[in-house]
Amino acid sequence: MADKKLVEEITSMDEDFAKWYTDIVLKAELIDYSSVKGCMILRPYGYAIWENIQRILNNMFVETGHENVYMPLFIPESLLQKEKDHVEGFAPEVAWVTHGGDEKLEERLCVRPTSETLFCEHYANIIHSYRDLPKLYNQWCSVVRWEKTSRPFLRSREFLWQEGHTAHATAEEAKEETIRMLNVYAEFAEKYLAIPVIKGIKTEKERFAGAKETYTIEALMHDGKALQSGTSHYFGDGFAKAFDIQFTDKDNKLKYVHQTSWGVSTRLIGAIIMTHGDDNGLVLPPAVAPAQVVVIPIAAHKPGVLERAEEIYQRLKSVCRVLIDTSDQSPGWKFAQYEMKGVPLRLEIGPKDIENGSCVAVLRNNREKQVISIDNIETEIPKLLEKVHEGIYQKALARREQMTHRATNFEELIDTAENKPGFIKAMWCGDRACEDLIKEKAGVTSRCIPFEQEHVADKCVCCGRPANKMVYWGKSY
Amino acid sequence: MADKKLVEEITSMDEDFAKWYTDIVLKAELIDYSSVKGCMILRPYGYAIWENIQRILNNMFVETGHENVYMPLFIPESLLQKEKDHVEGFAPEVAWVTHGGDEKLEERLCVRPTSETLFCEHYANIIHSYRDLPKLYNQWCSVVRWEKTSRPFLRSREFLWQEGHTAHATAEEAKEETIRMLNVYAEFAEKYLAIPVIKGIKTEKERFAGAKETYTIEALMHDGKALQSGTSHYFGDGFAKAFDIQFTDKDNKLKYVHQTSWGVSTRLIGAIIMTHGDDNGLVLPPAVAPAQVVVIPIAAHKPGVLERAEEIYQRLKSVCRVLIDTSDQSPGWKFAQYEMKGVPLRLEIGPKDIENGSCVAVLRNNREKQVISIDNIETEIPKLLEKVHEGIYQKALARREQMTHRATNFEELIDTAENKPGFIKAMWCGDRACEDLIKEKAGVTSRCIPFEQEHVADKCVCCGRPANKMVYWGKSY
Repeated sequence: MADKKLVEEITSMDEDFAKWYTDIVLKAELIDYSSVKGCMILRPYGYAIWENIQRILNNMFVETGHENVYMPLFIPESLLQKEKDHVEGFAPEVAWVTHGGDEKLEERLCVRPTSETLFCEHYANIIHSYRDLPKLYNQWCSVVRWEKTSRPFLRSREFLWQEGHTAHATAEEAKEETIRMLNVYAEFAEKYLAIPVIKGIKTEKERFAGAKETYTIEALMHDGKALQSGTSHYFGDGFAKAFDIQFTDKDNKLKYVHQTSWGVSTRLIGAIIMTHGDDNGLVLPPAVAPAQVVVIPIAAHKPGVLERAEEIYQRLKSVCRVLIDTSDQSPGWKFAQYEMKGVPLRLEIGPKDIENGSCVAVLRNNREKQVISIDNIETEIPKLLEKVHEGIYQKALARREQMTHRATNFEELIDTAENKPGFIKAMWCGDRACEDLIKEKAGVTSRCIPFEQEHVADKCVCCGRPANKMVYWGKSY
Repeated sequence: MADKKLVEEITSMDEDFAKWYTDIVLKAELIDYSSVKGCMILRPYGYAIWENIQRILNNMFVETGHENVYMPLFIPESLLQKEKDHVEGFAPEVAWVTHGGDEKLEERLCVRPTSETLFCEHYANIIHSYRDLPKLYNQWCSVVRWEKTSRPFLRSREFLWQEGHTAHATAEEAKEETIRMLNVYAEFAEKYLAIPVIKGIKTEKERFAGAKETYTIEALMHDGKALQSGTSHYFGDGFAKAFDIQFTDKDNKLKYVHQTSWGVSTRLIGAIIMTHGDDNGLVLPPAVAPAQVVVIPIAAHKPGVLERAEEIYQRLKSVCRVLIDTSDQSPGWKFAQYEMKGVPLRLEIGPKDIENGSCVAVLRNNREKQVISIDNIETEIPKLLEKVHEGIYQKALARREQMTHRATNFEELIDTAENKPGFIKAMWCGDRACEDLIKEKAGVTSRCIPFEQEHVADKCVCCGRPANKMVYWGKSY
């Protein structure tokens, strides 16, 4: 009974996707709300997913030569205003600190929405010679953007992220870095989160405030909406000129540095939920699941069961992140509970299993059951975790393919956007007017111009003029 | 010449201790200033020390059953005001956010100076039954306190810290937790930072705002000033009543929880600098040093030297955090540079060493030289790192003992406070008036009533009435 009740509490995806999402984030205990509007509390289970993301990504950053720093939380108004496009993009959505204790500040400070300006000021201070380059810095912190509406992980007034900021001697090196970090993000999304992504470049309209080019990885959620999951920006020397970041090069000439920035955030947790989750709850990729395996004794009062379950639990500690649940709740309740929490693998061990020297592994993603020999758990469990990863990745990939459509003329585009959730591949002439019109009439935006181009048609889907850029269009979070 | 120049740039400790400190934090590249007044930039070398502190402490927290969470950065004014003593303590020094974008907020938000109020609101929401207890949460984040003056690591408007917040079914359990975490801090300070600390309880005057009891670890800096290095607070049910955090106990009665909080911050880096540093720069405890060993080739142009140095470097990677410096700077410059940066051990390897199959290890703390066989580096280097740890710990302990004085009457107290830098042990009757008078006349505050009591005299050092509490007094940061 208890298990039924638990499952009934989640709204089904098809009934109301938004409600399904909110049910999961709350009932799987990822977050809680507080009296701080638009912000969220990351509870232990939600924060542990972020810690795993941090650990893996941080290693990838270190391997590519980056160093961590910590910049101030505040940005003086005058500093934020130094780069024109940047301040225009961010000023409307920043939180302003105006008082310290009882005193009014001489100059307002904004709570960082992103830290380009702080890194630039610091770089101007510490970069003098080509010997000081490149600077490859990263920061893990929270940032604040005063959004009107909010949804856990997807859009909130404060969120956790990392922001890489690098400075290079040449444009070429900076461009290479921009692509390198985009590739790191794509590899991370696919290899660790099991989320297939489209790599591409943003149109000018969708660029980051102050960037010369913005690259992105775009993922497709269960409901057919796109989620921008990570971005990498090439700044050229625009910020360097605004902040006067110059160095003496080998030829003894004074030159401006070329810069990049790149970031991913707790939004990735939203991507995990909406890519892999189902009507029973979360489905977590094994690489970032706080618990990869839960051991559940069956008929735990029977002699030997608890001892054997405990033995398995102890042995598994050396090969994975494992839990054991010996509470007096029913096995059915426990099954539902850990399915809700998205634990990739559950191991059932009862009297009959013990007689046979085996236990039953159940994969979270498809409920596939496998009887495995207790003798072999240390080698079998990692294989099954790999199988869960592969299973959810392939499923997400197949769904994306199924939900990716083509349109060769405007009518078809509007019809597809209205009736078929997902990505639409269509040609674009490169004109901002067409992009605006497509948004107005079809309700979709350009997600990216993918690196992997495809010749869908000869003409722009909007104006019919010759076009050689294939763009992914879609509704998005 | 270059090495001399480098060393000359540090003010000597005896000449001007404050200037020596500032020289070190800047020249060892721990921090940089920015246009954000009172805040600091943690540069890669400084931040890496903090990352090591985090990693070790976090493991200790996990081992004692704690879970990490993340609470919002902002606290609504009305929430901050719920506990009377707490708001009185913090309101004068908080930064206020009054606007989001162009709009004035309906209610001001303060940037968290500490998060008791947020944890309490959350606990009221998630704690219902004795089964929900204890809640043992911790958070790594930055906090803001609008200080009038600032010094890197010691006092700044924003600093990084961890704050543990726990809720328990009984007062006894909460008290045990308070002491448990104080012991974790003391163990961490001594075992990993090589800083001897006095464990004790604060007087009522020095208590944290809202606490029933505040426990502290106090360290003695090189200049004889005390540094409060970590605190652990017992709240009783004061916050629980203010925030209505109640649970149904096993006896089916509704009860208030009992709470604790405890924290350490980047201040610990200040403690490291002022405990172990010398006129040549930083001296880092091996456990938290970003690089524990630096390999420096001597006469690197001679055949075989670079190859052998590189081989040693590669082999050491598996046993410690190691660097190699093959730049074309002179060995002398490099020696000075890595002494300045406090690298615990330097390994010199030149043509003669190679002939002998040996290399020369130089301990940062006392410049002791040891010739070690290259064959044995994997076993010898960890031993030498342990020796550095032990050496700096014993030196700090001896200095503290030497700088700990006694006073049995008021005249002696005033004289000692004026002429002998360090701790003063003296008896206290427990009266706030005496504590105030001692501060006024002798310029020292009560650092703590140590757990390890000593009978210095029968009477209060101030009023002469009978006294049975021995207190550590001192000037402090």
